[in-house]
Amino acid sequence: MSDTVFRPATHADVPGIVALLADDALGATRESPDQAAYLRAFEAIDADPRNALVVADRDGELVGTMQLTFIPGLSHNGAERLQIEAVRVRSDLRGQGLGREMITWALEQGRGRGCRTAQLTTHKSRVDAHRFYAGLGFAASHEGMKLVL
Amino acid sequence: MSDTVFRPATHADVPGIVALLADDALGATRESPDQAAYLRAFEAIDADPRNALVVADRDGELVGTMQLTFIPGLSHNGAERLQIEAVRVRSDLRGQGLGREMITWALEQGRGRGCRTAQLTTHKSRVDAHRFYAGLGFAASHEGMKLVL
Repeated sequence: MSDTVFRPATHADVPGIVALLADDALGATRESPDQAAYLRAFEAIDADPRNALVVADRDGELVGTMQLTFIPGLSHNGAERLQIEAVRVRSDLRGQGLGREMITWALEQGRGRGCRTAQLTTHKSRVDAHRFYAGLGFAASHEGMKLVL
Repeated sequence: MSDTVFRPATHADVPGIVALLADDALGATRESPDQAAYLRAFEAIDADPRNALVVADRDGELVGTMQLTFIPGLSHNGAERLQIEAVRVRSDLRGQGLGREMITWALEQGRGRGCRTAQLTTHKSRVDAHRFYAGLGFAASHEGMKLVL
């Protein structure tokens, strides 16, 4: 049993979220210590009604994070789509069900807004993640293509 | 030489865009004739400074469409990411370079906003599309996972 609360991130959570993003085989190379840039980015996300930076909080400890983006679109008869990015669970808590709890909660948020599709991309090297998302009902139906600008 | 203009869609473009979305092997099954829902969706996109519904216009004719979403985020030091969705070229004009022109223009918009990454997903059955995006510099580095809510 966990007493995990999912809530919008606050300013005070930003350093902890950045640490979670960096504590990752792929993320480690792309984060820097420029906290001002992160705070500006946080403020942009926080002010946007179609973006939510979420933290998983256990008794005041930040144990996970993810970002939800609600993308409006014409297709599927005008339903928003839920996109999930930047999912991280604190490394010592992986494999214990917290990720499942987070994604299940995210999907509920999407359903509550009337989204018809949830989507995410995960690096082809993250084989455990593919299994994890497939277990939650996601289909690896698409190629996720990226380009560095 | 084409005189293609890329511009934000207007109300008047919506029926033509929906027709382009439906004129597609995968899209055909998921669009309906409920124009009011599409107009509401158009208004939501149009009012959102992080979303742009774009049309390719040749002498007043709608020849292509795509949607750009600028996703704010903490990672990559707080840069927005450009997401491209719902790319369609009018069927009689495919294979003639218009798609390349559209995506090149989209990437310029992303660079202009300081995006560090451009991303999109494309169904695994769209093998021609994978080749097309790879030719523009995209890497198929990720699994694109989807779930129907």
